[in-house]
Amino acid sequence: MESSLIDPAAKIGRNVTFGHGVRVYGNVEIGDDCRIGDFSVIGHPSAQPDTAQPLRLGAGATIRSHAVLYEGSDIGPALETGHHVVIREQSMIGENLRLGNFSDIEGACRIGDFVRMHGYAHVGRNATVGDFVWLFSLTTLMNDPLPPSHLSDPVTIGDMATVCVNAQLMPGVHVGRGSFIASGASAHGIIPPGVIVTGPDGEIAGPVRFMMHMQSRTRHPWPRHFTDAYPTRVHDRITRLAAEIEAEAAAAAQND
Amino acid sequence: MESSLIDPAAKIGRNVTFGHGVRVYGNVEIGDDCRIGDFSVIGHPSAQPDTAQPLRLGAGATIRSHAVLYEGSDIGPALETGHHVVIREQSMIGENLRLGNFSDIEGACRIGDFVRMHGYAHVGRNATVGDFVWLFSLTTLMNDPLPPSHLSDPVTIGDMATVCVNAQLMPGVHVGRGSFIASGASAHGIIPPGVIVTGPDGEIAGPVRFMMHMQSRTRHPWPRHFTDAYPTRVHDRITRLAAEIEAEAAAAAQND
Amino acid sequence: MESSLIDPAAKIGRNVTFGHGVRVYGNVEIGDDCRIGDFSVIGHPSAQPDTAQPLRLGAGATIRSHAVLYEGSDIGPALETGHHVVIREQSMIGENLRLGNFSDIEGACRIGDFVRMHGYAHVGRNATVGDFVWLFSLTTLMNDPLPPSHLSDPVTIGDMATVCVNAQLMPGVHVGRGSFIASGASAHGIIPPGVIVTGPDGEIAGPVRFMMHMQSRTRHPWPRHFTDAYPTRVHDRITRLAAEIEAEAAAAAQND
Repeated sequence: MESSLIDPAAKIGRNVTFGHGVRVYGNVEIGDDCRIGDFSVIGHPSAQPDTAQPLRLGAGATIRSHAVLYEGSDIGPALETGHHVVIREQSMIGENLRLGNFSDIEGACRIGDFVRMHGYAHVGRNATVGDFVWLFSLTTLMNDPLPPSHLSDPVTIGDMATVCVNAQLMPGVHVGRGSFIASGASAHGIIPPGVIVTGPDGEIAGPVRFMMHMQSRTRHPWPRHFTDAYPTRVHDRITRLAAEIEAEAAAAAQND
Repeated sequence: MESSLIDPAAKIGRNVTFGHGVRVYGNVEIGDDCRIGDFSVIGHPSAQPDTAQPLRLGAGATIRSHAVLYEGSDIGPALETGHHVVIREQSMIGENLRLGNFSDIEGACRIGDFVRMHGYAHVGRNATVGDFVWLFSLTTLMNDPLPPSHLSDPVTIGDMATVCVNAQLMPGVHVGRGSFIASGASAHGIIPPGVIVTGPDGEIAGPVRFMMHMQSRTRHPWPRHFTDAYPTRVHDRITRLAAEIEAEAAAAAQND
Repeated sequence: MESSLIDPAAKIGRNVTFGHGVRVYGNVEIGDDCRIGDFSVIGHPSAQPDTAQPLRLGAGATIRSHAVLYEGSDIGPALETGHHVVIREQSMIGENLRLGNFSDIEGACRIGDFVRMHGYAHVGRNATVGDFVWLFSLTTLMNDPLPPSHLSDPVTIGDMATVCVNAQLMPGVHVGRGSFIASGASAHGIIPPGVIVTGPDGEIAGPVRFMMHMQSRTRHPWPRHFTDAYPTRVHDRITRLAAEIEAEAAAAAQND
């Protein structure tokens, strides 16, 4: 389509479709069966030229319109983005990340497999996010402990943690595996595995396994009731990981 | 214009203008006198193919640049959007919705007439929003009571309610007609009509009619001083609705 | 490039580059050495036709993709924007503003020199922002003291103030020079120079000079350790301004 500008040096897999008004730079490798939405920019030049490398985009990606993906990242298969997202350079991303509208992953992040982010999620530079993590709308992962400064104390989020709407993850926080940061909470320091964090002071309010929806008798941790939302081939992986986290949480609680 | 891609199957009214780089799908009906901004996508395919239907866009709409409107919604006349907005499928929207930049209406929402949303407002799936409602910047309407889960407990907002900056509307909240959710507040449960909700615990702080700006002697509820911001032909409707809500609020207060 | 639509009436300096799919209106003056990113709109018509004037964009600007700059603003040299930003009409902006992704400057704002805003910052109409100010992600500058109303009580932020993630600046707040609004705080009223504001009630928690990062022995105010992040030619200006603010803060503290 004339409206698109696809650099002939780009390596494009089979069965890849491009929307209207797409720009693809030469420094890009796109896997098979990807769909690139309208007015997207794929392989945007890095703001840090010394870190420029190809953008590798795994097979089966769905990139919705007005997305910007920088060069120099390595993204696993089955990425799915909403509209108006940004993924900056040097980010290493696992399988089947799903990103909501207006989400922003800054440079040099490490993101695991099957991570889900809703809208307006902001992942600051150098953050580490485990597998099966949920970041709901307006979550912010900071990294500067005395802003503005040259210090950097990025956030680490363990596997299967859930971060709810409008939560703030303070610089240097380590969110334990399977923990639950409530909406509007501010998390800082070392959060043990499998706990609930609430409020602007980030109080640890108890174990995640106490959380329950009364009408439906649905309980946390979520793998008990939500594993079926993932592909069948990873159900065993979810079960093993959830058991591992429950044991870890029980051990941590006993040591208190 | 060559830069635009307008499907010839789209039904376009009279006196409709298209910006630079616009994509219009075939499944779209655009009323008379609409203006479609640059780099917009009108009639984006639904993520849920079984719910795909035409996008009906009422007469007199102004869609600003980089907007994305899905197929399968029905939007009344005189829509006005900021830049970079998203409206998902199966949303039923009344007359003269105004949406700020970066706002996002998810699928299957019901939005009344003359609703105003400022920037970064996020209306989660299945929400119901009444007539003359205000959602200020960064308001989030949630729907999952035990995230992530298969449960859905969407938000309902009554007519003429005001939701201020950065307020969180928790899953299942019913905001009473004419109530006022203060900035940064977290609202949950059943909010009576005509009250003020404040703080992270969503405390009910008193009746809206106590709110007043001392210098200007301007009082709430806002129809007392702000009706002139709407078209003359709906002034009677505003007056009647405001009186109805005041009576409802007085009755609710007496029953306490 | 055919994909772009550059009005021949626009005044374009030397060595200006345009990305793919750019729209430039005729009412625009672009200085030398500017780079305009893909799918941007430069000189968007004003929503308030009576205030329409040229957009003047100073030399050396880098505008990243999907940006929208309205006509009728005057922007100093070396602007640098992220992706998906909006700058509305009648805004007067100094030298080397840096804007993060999804930031939004509404109309009739006054912004000083060397201001930095991170992502999703929202600067409401008529705000005044001093020199060397930092606005981190999700900061909101309000202006309506009884929303919705016809009243306007915009925010004023003094030189070298820092506003952290998710802070709310309430209508009419005057943030003193060099003060620090902590993340999640809500600031209102008159904030003295050189103090820390914390929490949803906007408590003044003490002087900024008490802030320190223990491991690195890095102290606030930030010009002590962060001046090197600005061009050498403004180091003297930073030093003088910082000294002036420290004297002002000491005098204010003594008067308490």
